[in-house]
This record gives sequence, structure tokens and C-alpha cells, in this order.
Amino acid sequence: MALLQEFAAIVGKEYALTGNDTARWSTDWTGKYCAQPGVVLRPTSTHQVSQIMTLANAQRQSITPVSGHTGLVGGTYAPGGVMVSLDQMNTIHDINATTRTAVVDAGVVLSSLHDATDAEGLIFPLTFGARGSAMIGGVMSTNAGGSNVLRYGNTRDLVLGLEAVLADGRVVDLMSSLHKDNSGLNLRQLLIGSEGTLGIITKAVLKLAPKPITYATAMVAVPKLDDALTLLNRVQDATGGAVEAFEYMPRHYIDVHMARVDGAREPFDVPYDVNIMIEVATTTDTDITDALQTIMADMMNSGAVLDAVVAQNETQRRAMWDRREAAAELTFWRKPIVDTDVALPLDLVGSFLEQAYAKVVEADSGAEPFYIAHLGDGNVHYGVYPSSDDAALKDKIVEIIEDVVESLGGSFSAEHGVGLSKLNTMRRRKDPVALDMMRKIKGVLDPNGILNPGKLIPD
Amino acid sequence: MALLQEFAAIVGKEYALTGNDTARWSTDWTGKYCAQPGVVLRPTSTHQVSQIMTLANAQRQSITPVSGHTGLVGGTYAPGGVMVSLDQMNTIHDINATTRTAVVDAGVVLSSLHDATDAEGLIFPLTFGARGSAMIGGVMSTNAGGSNVLRYGNTRDLVLGLEAVLADGRVVDLMSSLHKDNSGLNLRQLLIGSEGTLGIITKAVLKLAPKPITYATAMVAVPKLDDALTLLNRVQDATGGAVEAFEYMPRHYIDVHMARVDGAREPFDVPYDVNIMIEVATTTDTDITDALQTIMADMMNSGAVLDAVVAQNETQRRAMWDRREAAAELTFWRKPIVDTDVALPLDLVGSFLEQAYAKVVEADSGAEPFYIAHLGDGNVHYGVYPSSDDAALKDKIVEIIEDVVESLGGSFSAEHGVGLSKLNTMRRRKDPVALDMMRKIKGVLDPNGILNPGKLIPD
Ligand SMILES: Cc1cc2nc3c(=O)[nH]c(=O)nc-3n(C[C@H](O)[C@H](O)[C@H](O)COP(=O)(O)OP(=O)(O)OC[C@H]3O[C@@H](n4cnc5c(N)ncnc54)[C@H](O)[C@@H]3O)c2cc1C
Ligand SMILES: Cc1cc2nc3c(=O)[nH]c(=O)nc-3n(C[C@H](O)[C@H](O)[C@H](O)COP(=O)(O)OP(=O)(O)OC[C@H]3O[C@@H](n4cnc5c(N)ncnc54)[C@H](O)[C@@H]3O)c2cc1C
Repeated sequence: MALLQEFAAIVGKEYALTGNDTARWSTDWTGKYCAQPGVVLRPTSTHQVSQIMTLANAQRQSITPVSGHTGLVGGTYAPGGVMVSLDQMNTIHDINATTRTAVVDAGVVLSSLHDATDAEGLIFPLTFGARGSAMIGGVMSTNAGGSNVLRYGNTRDLVLGLEAVLADGRVVDLMSSLHKDNSGLNLRQLLIGSEGTLGIITKAVLKLAPKPITYATAMVAVPKLDDALTLLNRVQDATGGAVEAFEYMPRHYIDVHMARVDGAREPFDVPYDVNIMIEVATTTDTDITDALQTIMADMMNSGAVLDAVVAQNETQRRAMWDRREAAAELTFWRKPIVDTDVALPLDLVGSFLEQAYAKVVEADSGAEPFYIAHLGDGNVHYGVYPSSDDAALKDKIVEIIEDVVESLGGSFSAEHGVGLSKLNTMRRRKDPVALDMMRKIKGVLDPNGILNPGKLIPD
Repeated sequence: MALLQEFAAIVGKEYALTGNDTARWSTDWTGKYCAQPGVVLRPTSTHQVSQIMTLANAQRQSITPVSGHTGLVGGTYAPGGVMVSLDQMNTIHDINATTRTAVVDAGVVLSSLHDATDAEGLIFPLTFGARGSAMIGGVMSTNAGGSNVLRYGNTRDLVLGLEAVLADGRVVDLMSSLHKDNSGLNLRQLLIGSEGTLGIITKAVLKLAPKPITYATAMVAVPKLDDALTLLNRVQDATGGAVEAFEYMPRHYIDVHMARVDGAREPFDVPYDVNIMIEVATTTDTDITDALQTIMADMMNSGAVLDAVVAQNETQRRAMWDRREAAAELTFWRKPIVDTDVALPLDLVGSFLEQAYAKVVEADSGAEPFYIAHLGDGNVHYGVYPSSDDAALKDKIVEIIEDVVESLGGSFSAEHGVGLSKLNTMRRRKDPVALDMMRKIKGVLDPNGILNPGKLIPD
């Protein structure tokens, strides 16, 4: 096609991939959204991205941005379409230890940024299993969460400024490194989490945090989830809010981990139902391990903690994290699967799990739930292996889970985003006035509807 | 007018004020934006607000929302217009100590919320001099900052959910209490800081924090602002980020405070140029006073701290805060004044102050700068008393200050908002693409332009 040649003229032939060269962008991580794109463009500058969008807009050509391609909701699915990959824009421009900020291109891989900040005694806190592939533009566009949101917030809390190319090719410059900036409507927060539907993020200014010098990491078994919440609040207060991770792994998660991962070990000598991984970290020389142990001992006396193991060294700590970070793989190895990513008010996670289980099994007696939770955020990755691959059955299970979530004031989409997989849910569940506002904003910022069409915002 | 009667029918006659009854809404705090509104409506429910907007939209009647009326930028100025005051919607619906959240109406006064959370051993961290009048809807609409943004963030970081009435009377329900909720474009953050131009905020879910049990509050004199930043980073690291306030008061601020406030005292035995108020707080039993004193002693040895006084009791602490919180009054007592509210990258505040001073005095040799800074946020309230009330001169001084800010990558509007007073600056300084996006969003969400027209977004 002639358009292809025009695109190739912008980025250079070697950066306009077609056919088998697009293999890396043809299969997604879940294996659910696989399709060969028509072309993958790999621009090397904001200017090139701008030229691509100017041309695309003039030609009414849809564009799907892609970064690490690790999204779990089909947000980059573009059969036969034009993908714009940010992977060639991967310079870390600045890491400022005094102001604790970083300036990076959108294509910087999360773990590369981790390495670079580490060298300066700082951290970019955001982290999760896919950090070796996910890129800054991708995590911003999905407002990724992960395992230490409790302490540092979601991606949107870690971004001070950004640059983006709009649907018509114009560049919007919001590259502020400021902590206060009330100058008009907050376009930065509008672009973050917009999943490529409003603009292509090309650059960012990120907040860094001092690197903790001590970690106290433990596995704790408690009788009930309520006890876990008590533990969380007590440790938060005793450490001044230093809890970095508070992760719930139910019995069946441990069982599957044992069965499927070489060298996996039980967290305790006896198997417990409610297993919590807690990590506390500090930049000070206060003894957080001691604080943690005191609280656990006290709660053990009262029966609110059943067992606890504190990591004695980095190897033991790493093993605890590996068990947790296997979650995505352990969830998706088995098919068919109904996967959800829901959020609940902190004190209603237990009610959710009970009600969801009862109702799912009532509808499909052969169904097996499989879940894990960022408990400190009320975020449950609640999956179900249904007894058959029947589409209507799977849909029904989704509805059941979401009914329970809605009745408890939760959200059907916590951290992975909406993409394609939750588009129907958005249509059914999101406040209709909110949906209408989103459609209007989309309509006016991308009037030709060329930026990642069919994602995030249902028609 | 017939419309007035229709409005009165919605809220009840006693809540539709005209003439002298509107006195409370006729003068603003700065004394710069004074004008009698045509009518002040005081609805008592979201439903009434919705009815008001439905009617206003049908009649193309402009509406200016008002909460505590303490805004400093003329955001509520509505000569002869229709104001909608939220003050009658002031119920605190829930304070949940387990999930650490509060559900409140928009008209709840900030200090009332402080009192209510205090009783539960919690805090709503946002605080500043006007807390006895400012209301939740007002602080949300301006994304207010204040003195502990460093620790807890701006208002937008403290809001989990909200409800708002749109220009056409529809109610958008975003009343989430969730810590993760990626379900579409972030309308919550769009409404926060929109200064009444996109919707009337009627309700909110707020994040609470545990109440510190110990405060260490000190006045510290340092040779240069760079030393202050070193102090800040060292105390942050030593306390695990427990610095709540880091406020800069230059010599002339202390002088004016001494001259104008009964019972005011010098912070030190000798007068210093760079005076910092630092407050550290903790929910743990670690000795933060000790940590603070150790660092200050160490820095005194190296000459990077000149003097330090730690508050020995609540009375001394309160006196330090009173000195700081007199800022707005000490700034606005003298007229004419050019007041700005700028933000700089943390390490460029010193350069800004030097350059601004040199250039302002070059342009107006009789000008006297007067400033104070939330130094930990890079936020300077930089005022200038010009030698005359000449409009052109005042405008020139604003331009000079903003030129310096812009050249250093700062923002012309840090925390007070844009309102009317910075409308010209928005037009001149804000990225034109960003401005265009704002206009488009405003145009599509309020097509008749009836919500607080002429504020925030320049035509
Ligand atoms: C093993 C594993 C573990 C995971 N764990 C977590 C977790 O704990 N928490 C969590 O939140 N997520 C998790 N995820 C999901 C995923 O990693 C995140 O959503 C991540 O943010 C995606 O980043 P990416 O660079 O791969 O983006 P992509 O997958 O390439 O794209 C994601 C979306 O953003 C858009 N996009 C990409 N780049 C841009 C850009 N520059 N401008 C505009 N739009 C763009 C795309 O069109 C798409 O809609 C996990 C995924 C895997 C595979
Ligand atoms: C002594 C003093 C000290 C101050 N210190 C600080 C400080 O340290 N930091 C800081 O950030 N500010 C400060 N301010 C400014 C001011 O207090 C804040 O901007 C505050 O947030 C305004 O709240 P309010 O309820 O008075 O709002 P108002 O003044 O009533 O309104 C402010 C703006 O919001 C709009 N609005 C009000 N309510 C609603 C609603 N429910 N829905 C939609 N729009 C609405 C109005 O139209 C207006 O544009 C100070 C002011 C004073 C007088």
C-alpha cells in the first residue's frame, strides 16, 4: 500500500516491519489476543511519532500504540492494523538525585530504569512480574499498579510530567517536574490510564524515592482475612507507614505453586489457608524486623496470627517474592479461564471471596476459582477455571463475579485496565453519565477515532 | 425575575438570597474581587443542585459555585450573577477507621472534618490558614495544597471518589473508596482542580491517615537555600520520609511579622536571613526529635546549619505555626500588591529568588519583594509591592517574575489556582496545544458555557 511507503519514509525502511518481522507483536502474553498486524512502525523520535499521526489522521488510518506488549487485556490487539512501537525511544535522559526525579523516553524498559536509579541510591518504586519487558509508556497508559502501590501509589502517583502526541499529530508538552502545578484542567492525569486512546505518550518526568536500606519480609499465616487487616494497620502504625507489600496467597495458590514450579517450597511446616506476604522497608536504621516480630508475637499470643517466618537473607526474601510473582503464569497456564482483576473496599475482600465462590459454584458446580490478592489495596485477581469452554457459561461467570463486586461497592477493573477484554463490562457497569463524558472527550480529542479504536471506551 | 422564582422554588425561599443577604458572598478575602451577586442559592441536596443546573442550562443562565469563599484568585467573582453555595450540604456521612476513609458532603468545612477525624485517632492531612472556612468542595475544585503536601500530597492525592453535577444537571457518580480503579478515563482527576468550570462537586470519599503521636518541630537557620535542601533530604532519609512541613521564611518575612503581629517573637537570638521551619511527625515510638537533633548538630559542625531551636511543647510548636500561617494576612495587608504563586524545581528556588529580585528592582527601583515558600514543594508565594498602583507597571512585574519562572522550568500557578487573576497568564504561558485541549473538553462538557464562565480557561 502507498500509505505503508509513506510511513516507511518517516521512520526509515528498517523500522517499518511487515510480515514475519512483526512476529514479536503478533502474539500477546496471555495467548488470548493473537493476530498479525499489517505493519509495525518503530519511530526514533517524538517528531517521527508526530509525523506518523499527522499522516494517519489525514488518511483516517487507525493506529495502535505498543510498548512492552505485556498488557493482559488485549489493549494492543490490531489484526492487520498499524502498530506504533515505542521501543526505539529508550533513552534515560536524566536522573537527578537532589530533586529525586528522572526524565525518560516512553520506550525505557521498567527494569532498565530500576537499574539506573539503583546506581544512584534511588528507586522508581513501580514493580511487577513483567518489569523486564513493560515500558514506561505502557505502564503510564495502563496506570499499572503492582505490589507496592500501598506505599508508593499507582503509576499516576509517580508521574510529574509527560509529553504526548495527539491524534492529529500535535505534541502536547506537559513535561513538568513540579510537585505543585495548578494551571488548568489536569491533562496529565487524563492521558495516564487512557490506554492509547487519547495520545501516544513519548516522554515522562518521574518521581523517585530513596532506596530502602533494610527490608523485613515475612510470610504470616492468619486465621481470617480480618486478622490480616488488623496486622496491616498495626504494622503501618508501628513503622510509620513503611509497609511496601501486603499480598494474600490462599491455600490453593500455594498448592498450584508447589505442583508447577521446580524447587517451590511450602511457606510453613504445616499448610495454612490464609498466607500473607508482608514486606516492610526503611531508609533509616530503626529495627523494623524487630517491630514486625513484636507485633506478630503479640498477635500470636491472642491467636490472631497462627505462624510466621521472617526472611533471614536476600535468598529467602527472593524466594518469597518469586512465589508471589509467579501469579500471572500460574493463573494463565490452564485453559479455559475466566480472569478478572477487581478491587474492593479493604474490609470487604473476605465477603467478596465468600459470596463469589458460593455463586460461581452454584452456577457451574465444576468451576474452580483461582485467586491471589494485593490485599493492602483490596485488589483481587480472581480467576475461575470453568467446567467447559462454553462462551455463554464464561460470560455468566464474569457477570456473577461482577455482580458481587458491584454490590460491595467495588470496581470491575483494578489495575490491568479495560482494553478489549472488559469493554462489555464497561458498557454494562460503568456509570452511564461517566461513559457519556468519556465518549465526548474522546470524540473531541480524536474526532476521526483513529487512536486505538475499539478499546477502553465502548461505543 | 421569573427565573429567580423558579430557582427559589427549587431550594425554598429562605435559601435563595438576594440584596443585603448576599453580603457574605459579596467581598472576597483578598479584597480584590468584590461585587454583589444577583442571587445566592443554597441547595440542601444533590438533587436540588441537579435541578438548579437543569434549569440554568435550559435558560443559558451562568452559575458560579462557591464553598468557603476563601479562594485567592477571584474564582467566585460573579457580579450580579447566580452563585450556588454548598454551605448547607455539610454532613459528614462516615468516618471508617478500618479502611481509613471518610465520606463527606462538599460543604463540610475543612476544620470540622479535622475535628471529626481527630476523635477517631485519624487525620485528614490537608491544612492551611483558611481551614476554618474553606470547604471540601472548594479545596477539591482548586486542588488546594498547603503546608504538608510534601508528606501527604495535594488535595487530588487525598480524594478516592466524588460525585458531581454537570452543566446539564446530570449527576456523575464516581463515589469509589477504592485504591485501584482503572475503569476508563480518569474523570475524577479531571474534575478536581477544574475550579467549577466542569461540574459542581457535591460529595467526596477522602483518604485519611493515622494521627501522628509525636511531632518534632524546629526553626533552623542555614547559610543558603542549598543547605536547606541538604537538610531536607537528610531528615527525610533518617526518618523514612516523615517530614510534614518544610517552610522557608526569609529575613524580611520575620521583620514584618514582628512589626505587625502582637506578641510575635524572633525565632533566634540573632537575626538570620534563611529561616526554615521543619516539622517531622511519626505514628511510632522512634525518637524523631533525637534524629532531627543529631542531623542538625552534625550540619552545625560543618557550618551548613547556623542555629536551631526545637519546640519544647505544644505552645512553642503552635507559635512556630502561627508565624507561618500569618503569611496570607502579612502578604495582603499592604496595597498595591502584585501577588504570585509559583512553583520551581526544588533545586532552582534559590536561582529564581536571585534573578526575580534583580529584574524586578531593575524595572521598578522602588519595588519591595515579599515572599514565603513551601520550600519542600518548590512553591514560592512571591509578592511584590510596586512603587505605584500603575496597571502597566504591575503587569510588567508579573511578566518579569513569570519570565524567570518559565526560564527555570517552573509553573506560574502552583496551588491557589488560576481563577480570574491568572487568566491572562494562562493565555500567554500555557502550552497552546494544552490550552486547546482544555477548551475542547470544556466545550463538549459544558456546551452552553454556563459553569463559572470566564475562569480558568481563557477563550
Ligand atoms: C507476568 C505479568 C505480570 C503483570 N503484573 C502486573 C501487575 O502486578 N500490575 C499491573 O498493573 N499490571 C501487571 N501486568 C500487566 C502489564 O504488565 C501492565 O499493564 C503494563 O503496564 C503494560 O506495559 P507494556 O509496556 O507492556 O504496555 P503494552 O502492553 O504494550 O500496552 C498496554 C496499553 O497501553 C497502550 N500503550 C502502550 N504504550 C503506549 C504509549 N507510549 N502511549 C500511549 N499508549 C500506549 C497500548 O495501546 C495498550 O492499550 C502484568 C503482566 C504480566 C505479563
Ligand atoms: C488565609 C488563607 C490561607 C490560604 N492558604 C492556602 C494554602 O496554603 N494553600 C492553598 O492551596 N490555598 C490556600 N488558600 C486559598 C484557598 O483557601 C483555597 O484555594 C481553598 O481551597 C478554597 O476553598 P473554598 O472552600 O474557600 O473555595 P471557594 O473560594 O469558595 O471557591 C474556590 C473555587 O472553587 C470553585 N468551587 C467552590 N466550591 C465548588 C464546588 N463544590 N464544586 C465546584 N466548584 C467549586 C469556585 O467557583 C472557585 O472557582 C488560602 C486562603 C486564605 C484566605
